[in-house]
Amino acid sequence: MADNFVFEDNVRIYDTDAQAIVHYAGYYRFFTDAAERFMRETLGTSYPLIDSDTWFVVVESKAQYRKSAKLGDLLSVVLKPELLSPKALKFEFEILRNGERICDGYITQVAIDRNKWKAVNIPEGILSKINEIL
Amino acid sequence: MADNFVFEDNVRIYDTDAQAIVHYAGYYRFFTDAAERFMRETLGTSYPLIDSDTWFVVVESKAQYRKSAKLGDLLSVVLKPELLSPKALKFEFEILRNGERICDGYITQVAIDRNKWKAVNIPEGILSKINEIL
Amino acid sequence: MADNFVFEDNVRIYDTDAQAIVHYAGYYRFFTDAAERFMRETLGTSYPLIDSDTWFVVVESKAQYRKSAKLGDLLSVVLKPELLSPKALKFEFEILRNGERICDGYITQVAIDRNKWKAVNIPEGILSKINEIL
Amino acid sequence: MADNFVFEDNVRIYDTDAQAIVHYAGYYRFFTDAAERFMRETLGTSYPLIDSDTWFVVVESKAQYRKSAKLGDLLSVVLKPELLSPKALKFEFEILRNGERICDGYITQVAIDRNKWKAVNIPEGILSKINEIL
Repeated sequence: MADNFVFEDNVRIYDTDAQAIVHYAGYYRFFTDAAERFMRETLGTSYPLIDSDTWFVVVESKAQYRKSAKLGDLLSVVLKPELLSPKALKFEFEILRNGERICDGYITQVAIDRNKWKAVNIPEGILSKINEIL
Repeated sequence: MADNFVFEDNVRIYDTDAQAIVHYAGYYRFFTDAAERFMRETLGTSYPLIDSDTWFVVVESKAQYRKSAKLGDLLSVVLKPELLSPKALKFEFEILRNGERICDGYITQVAIDRNKWKAVNIPEGILSKINEIL
Repeated sequence: MADNFVFEDNVRIYDTDAQAIVHYAGYYRFFTDAAERFMRETLGTSYPLIDSDTWFVVVESKAQYRKSAKLGDLLSVVLKPELLSPKALKFEFEILRNGERICDGYITQVAIDRNKWKAVNIPEGILSKINEIL
Repeated sequence: MADNFVFEDNVRIYDTDAQAIVHYAGYYRFFTDAAERFMRETLGTSYPLIDSDTWFVVVESKAQYRKSAKLGDLLSVVLKPELLSPKALKFEFEILRNGERICDGYITQVAIDRNKWKAVNIPEGILSKINEIL
């Protein structure tokens, strides 16, 4: 059964811009940090360079901003994995502040053979662990 | 009639990551640069801080990555403005390399009263210029 | 007596560039993270916006790179505070990987009245805590 | 005879932080842009990946901030090259706004064999061009 994974992060000065809120593209740092921690802590693999042959490359990213995060805010980043195909893995994200959703979005990544730069199946060990937690 | 606006940009070393391609979130720099130049050169206004009362804040961003941009690539960023409402302006982007589309996406922004942090109409002078070019 | 403060950080994909190492300017993220955590955890204050009147602004930064950090490296960032004057606070940093120093540098910041944008004394509460730990 | 090289750049929203000025580490983007343009336009080479064997890696960076740059500021970045040895090239920078120096600093880089990751002489073609302009 699908589970959610939650990671905490802080808004740092370099995440903000002259509007005194997190720069819109800066939210992708929180997405990336959660993805990296999920891959490392739950799947036991590095990210996005999986092994010497296989990399994940991002093919799509999206974010909707509902409230503005500010310097010093403590954010909870909720990650929900979805296997789109044996080659493509989507991470859906929600960012919460004090329990209120302020941002959501996703990044979709495809496994590639880094030498041929062609899509390949996600390594079996990762696939089976993802299927276990879904 | 709707026109397209084209801006050139170079991939710099800080845009890239350890996959030797532009980091997925780095493409938003090209979107932002094109937006800022369109606002300055075509509409004659600063961006995203329009005036002492009015700011544009980004409420949504999306990008699809079709081919990977590499260090030194010369990119053409095509911007197409779309007025979603008197308060909301969408910029659609295509990024071309040697005439081939390698990325597309958009950012949507809403005009706000920066003191009350509430949505307001885009200033009349900007609205009329946008309507002229659409 | 002067103490050192140690913070751990990971090299993320967005820290790296096409040389597959941390981009030279990316090391300042590790400096900033350590500074922010030192201020919060040891001095009990936010950083670099201290309170509604007083900010720290950085007046100098320097880094020397001895070895290259790579994606996934676990880094120990050692911070040593030095009070240059009642207005100016320097943080010296060493970045270690597996006990080996790979980078060192510093950032120096001055307290300002954010409304007048003029140097002022660091707030008394912070000064006394810094003097306690030095 | 030593010449200076001047490049113009604009402060973009992503360069700024919640202090409504350029983030201290953001000034290194202006240094990097000037370095890349100097290498391309004056020396006719890419930067910092020179060719398939040789890369420049940054071994030291420093910046002093005298005045704060703000969103929309037009900056002139003055670059002065200095050959420290046949292996090491230093770029000194001054950033001017309306003729007033607001920041200065440098980055020093060493040529390496990217496969052995060892310092090597800067390629002859680049060395001779640098010596011509010094």
